[in-house]
Amino acid sequence: MPEVTVVGLGLMGQALAQAFLAEGHATTVWNRSAGKAERLVAQGAILADSVRAAVVASPLVVVCVSDHQAVRAVLDPLADVLAGRVVVNLTSGTSEQARETARWASERGIGYLDGVIMDVPQGIGTTGAVLYYSGPQAGFDLHEPVLRSLGGATTYLGADPGLSSLYDMATLTMMWSILNGFLHGAALLGTANVPAATFAPAVAKGMATVAEWLPGYAEQIDDGKYPALDATIDTHLAAMEHLVQESEVLGVSVELPRFVKALADRAVAEGHGGEGYAALIEQFRRPIATRG
Amino acid sequence: MPEVTVVGLGLMGQALAQAFLAEGHATTVWNRSAGKAERLVAQGAILADSVRAAVVASPLVVVCVSDHQAVRAVLDPLADVLAGRVVVNLTSGTSEQARETARWASERGIGYLDGVIMDVPQGIGTTGAVLYYSGPQAGFDLHEPVLRSLGGATTYLGADPGLSSLYDMATLTMMWSILNGFLHGAALLGTANVPAATFAPAVAKGMATVAEWLPGYAEQIDDGKYPALDATIDTHLAAMEHLVQESEVLGVSVELPRFVKALADRAVAEGHGGEGYAALIEQFRRPIATRG
Repeated sequence: MPEVTVVGLGLMGQALAQAFLAEGHATTVWNRSAGKAERLVAQGAILADSVRAAVVASPLVVVCVSDHQAVRAVLDPLADVLAGRVVVNLTSGTSEQARETARWASERGIGYLDGVIMDVPQGIGTTGAVLYYSGPQAGFDLHEPVLRSLGGATTYLGADPGLSSLYDMATLTMMWSILNGFLHGAALLGTANVPAATFAPAVAKGMATVAEWLPGYAEQIDDGKYPALDATIDTHLAAMEHLVQESEVLGVSVELPRFVKALADRAVAEGHGGEGYAALIEQFRRPIATRG
Repeated sequence: MPEVTVVGLGLMGQALAQAFLAEGHATTVWNRSAGKAERLVAQGAILADSVRAAVVASPLVVVCVSDHQAVRAVLDPLADVLAGRVVVNLTSGTSEQARETARWASERGIGYLDGVIMDVPQGIGTTGAVLYYSGPQAGFDLHEPVLRSLGGATTYLGADPGLSSLYDMATLTMMWSILNGFLHGAALLGTANVPAATFAPAVAKGMATVAEWLPGYAEQIDDGKYPALDATIDTHLAAMEHLVQESEVLGVSVELPRFVKALADRAVAEGHGGEGYAALIEQFRRPIATRG
C-alpha cells in the first residue's frame, strides 16, 4: 500500500491520519506538539522525529494546519525534500491563498493540490464525505486511490487551485443563507407560538421546490438573459414589502428582509423589474452596494 | 354542487374562478371592471350586476383583490348581506392585517378565513398547489370540499387568522434566502469562470444535507438549548471570515457575507460561541441589530 504523511494533528488532521490507517496505508505523522500523535501511534502510525523526516517518508504529504501562513512556515524550509513529491493542502483558506501557495509550490518543483473537506472530523472516511481537490490534474490522478480513503465523494474540480476554496465558500454561503432564512421564518412564526418543529416540514417542502428551480435559473445566469419564468422581480418586491412590514410590526429581525428587499429595489431601479429573480445575479457580482 | 362567489378577477382571481368552474361549482364572479369576466362567462361563470348581487348568490365568498384596504372598501358596505356567510380572503397582506380583517368580520357576524396561495396562477387547481387557511375552524370545515378545488395541498393551519400570512412570510424569507445564497455562490464561482449550471448540482446536494439538519435545529429552538451537534458558532465564524475576505478580494457582493458574519459576531460577543448554529435564533427574535 502506498505511503502517506500527515502534517498537522488537530481534530481534523487526526481524523485524516486515522482514515489512511484504516485503509492500510503506511501513515507517517507529525505535529508541532508530539502528544497529539499518541492515539494514532497506538493505531499503527509512524511518528516522525522531525517534519523533515515526516516529509521524506512518503511521496504524498497531506497538510492540515491552522491557516496558509502556518502551511508556508512549516513547508518553506523543506522545499528541497518536497520537490518531486505532492503536497495536498487541506488547510482552510481563500482561493487567492490557495493560488499563492500553488505558485510557491510550482516554482520549487513541488506537486500541489488544494483541497477542502466538506464535513466534520467524524465524517472523514465515510462514503458520504465530500472532499474537493483542485490543481494540476497529474497529482490528483497519481494519488486519487489514497485520497479516496478520506471520503467516498472525492471530487476533482479542475486545474485552477482556487476552485476548491471557491466551491467551499459557495456551498457555505448557501448553507448559512438557508439556515438564516429558516431561523428568520421560525422567529416570525414564533410570535404566534408556532413551534419550529411544526415549521420544519413546510421548510423541507419549500426547499425541494426551490431546488427544482435552480437549474433553470443557472441556465439564465450562464446565458445572461432573465425572462420571468414564474414571478417577476416587481411581483417579488411587493411580497418583500410585506415581509419587511411583518418583521417590523412583530419585532423580529428586520436586517434579513431589508437586505432581501434592497437587492430587488436596486434591480427595479436599474430597469429589471419585469425580469425573473435570476437577474439579481448582477447585484451579487458587484463589490458593494449602498443600502436602498 | 355548492355555489361560490369570486370577487376580484386579476390573474389570480381568474385562475381561482376557473378552478371552481372546472370542478363544476356554480361560480358567480364580480370585478370592478367587468371586462375581465368575459373569458370566465364563456366558460360558464355567472357575472353579477353588482358586488352585492355577487355576494348574495353564494354562501362562500372568495375575495382576491390588491390589498386589505381594497378588501374593506369592497366588503364594508355589504356587512348586512355577508352576515351568516363565509368570506375567504386570499388577498396578500401581513398577519396583523389578517387579524384586523378577521375582527372586523367577527364583529359583524361574518364567517372569515384568511388564506394564502403558495403558487402562481398557472398552478391553481393542480394537485401540487399549496394553499394555507387560518381562522375559525367551522368555516374551513364547512367549505373545505369547495376550497380543495383550488389545490391538492389545501391546509388548515389553526384558529389564529394571522397564521396563513406568517407561514407565507416564513416560507418566502426561506425562499429568497436560498436564492440569494445560490446567486452569491454563483457570483463567487463565476470569478473563476465556473458556470452556474456546474454549481447547481452541488447546491442541490448541499440543500439536501441542510434539510436533514433542520428537524434537529428546530428541536433545539423549541427547547431553548443549543448544544453544538456539529460545528460550534466559533468554528462557523472562522469560515465566515474567509467568506468575507474571499468576497472582498474577488470583488463580489460583501453584503450577504457581512450580514452572515455580523450575526455570528454578536452571538459570540454574547457568550454563545461554543453553542451550535441554532443559538442564532436569539438574533432573529430581535427587532433590530447594529452592524458588527
